[in-house]
Amino acid sequence: MLTVKRLSLTDARLLIEGARNKAEEIGVPMCIAVTDESGQLIAFERMDGGKITSTIIAQDKAYTAAGAKRTTESYGAASQPGSPAYGINSAIGGRLMVVAGGLPVIVEGEVVGAIGLSSGTPAQDSECAQAGITHLLSKL
Amino acid sequence: MLTVKRLSLTDARLLIEGARNKAEEIGVPMCIAVTDESGQLIAFERMDGGKITSTIIAQDKAYTAAGAKRTTESYGAASQPGSPAYGINSAIGGRLMVVAGGLPVIVEGEVVGAIGLSSGTPAQDSECAQAGITHLLSKL
Amino acid sequence: MLTVKRLSLTDARLLIEGARNKAEEIGVPMCIAVTDESGQLIAFERMDGGKITSTIIAQDKAYTAAGAKRTTESYGAASQPGSPAYGINSAIGGRLMVVAGGLPVIVEGEVVGAIGLSSGTPAQDSECAQAGITHLLSKL
Amino acid sequence: MLTVKRLSLTDARLLIEGARNKAEEIGVPMCIAVTDESGQLIAFERMDGGKITSTIIAQDKAYTAAGAKRTTESYGAASQPGSPAYGINSAIGGRLMVVAGGLPVIVEGEVVGAIGLSSGTPAQDSECAQAGITHLLSKL
Repeated sequence: MLTVKRLSLTDARLLIEGARNKAEEIGVPMCIAVTDESGQLIAFERMDGGKITSTIIAQDKAYTAAGAKRTTESYGAASQPGSPAYGINSAIGGRLMVVAGGLPVIVEGEVVGAIGLSSGTPAQDSECAQAGITHLLSKL
Repeated sequence: MLTVKRLSLTDARLLIEGARNKAEEIGVPMCIAVTDESGQLIAFERMDGGKITSTIIAQDKAYTAAGAKRTTESYGAASQPGSPAYGINSAIGGRLMVVAGGLPVIVEGEVVGAIGLSSGTPAQDSECAQAGITHLLSKL
Repeated sequence: MLTVKRLSLTDARLLIEGARNKAEEIGVPMCIAVTDESGQLIAFERMDGGKITSTIIAQDKAYTAAGAKRTTESYGAASQPGSPAYGINSAIGGRLMVVAGGLPVIVEGEVVGAIGLSSGTPAQDSECAQAGITHLLSKL
Repeated sequence: MLTVKRLSLTDARLLIEGARNKAEEIGVPMCIAVTDESGQLIAFERMDGGKITSTIIAQDKAYTAAGAKRTTESYGAASQPGSPAYGINSAIGGRLMVVAGGLPVIVEGEVVGAIGLSSGTPAQDSECAQAGITHLLSKL
């Protein structure tokens, strides 16, 4: 039998709070999704003005980061034409996201969940996702 | 041009809060989803212990209630064998839910969004969804 | 509670009329889709001779332009290899379109819907979509 | 942070071994799937002669039993016409299975995964799934 650490709903709310604070600071209304370590949704918020397409994309970024235990941004590099993971962006019915903005949440060396953002530029999405993680880690 | 009223994120949080309070009271950890009047997700929470399958089902109940402007329970009756809507449960790739637990949120006669719950019995899901709506309406 | 402006069916017909006029002028039978600001279909016409695959693509172009509040053409540039949104074309089950021909309809600074065309070259699709918007705006 | 118990691959193999032994005994080549507590696949075997359609159905039975923390057979009863969960069989894109053969694996009161079988009659599928669980529990 295995024992697995997983974000609680309280943890997920802290991730969203930290990401939302940063989104407000930079003035970009975001879709923010948090999944557990298996990529299953725990919590989600669309800030007023967040994009409709981002309701799905944010969830899929978190799913990808949790499931593959890596940032979606890292897949962007690995999936360029000529690179080994080229074409992986359409895997899993298109759920595998290779655009920045999905980050695994790592606690004591273990992936315990992930956060995914969408609505800004990929760089903004990543920045806010990281702010969520920093906020959570400061509370643990 | 039309003008449409829609739940804000603040409203969605109140819906979730009311539903969650009732869920805690009856001791059933729930998945709670709130969509806007177009069925697009605004907010979601999976209480610790909520079911994995319910992460999707709760969202689809809210989508159905918002999109069809009726309770998912009413579809349950209408889709029984021999009834006019028989078979509609598999429509929209299976997203159209005919099990109780999805309620439209109606303000001044207009559907402004919906709330969907899943993890309990359909009756419990509905009861908690209604509690969310009652809570929101008491704050408006 | 939020208040949202949205295309009416009358508006949608004007968008299609303007696009169709241009399509006839250039001699390309088009599929023309109009969605509301949430990406949900309001009106659709396949001109006699329009392509079958375009019935879906036109809808998805409009969905993308409305949902992401930008032209699908802009995604084409942003999603080239090496660019930040590389790989986004397969998001949302492949519904996110990065080929030109989908334009948001913006009235008084707000996205109120979108128009998507398909059957011509991407440049022709865009030209006709723009003609639809110009036609609508001239009537408001 | 939550702590979750989950089947290991060793556990999953024992589940399959027990199910396969029973399948051989009754002379029905089976598809046997084991998922973790989140419904994600850990191990799968199609015995020579197992049905093609069952490769998917066995997985979805295990997914359902793990995700909903109940047997798929119990959904069969609850989803009969006139019953509260009527119509739920098409939920989650049709992945939610209400045919017998999917059982949650419960250890010390917690769902730690699930086993799903398909290729026989539903009663045979269930019988072999239960044999897998009995075999695992005898080894823990």
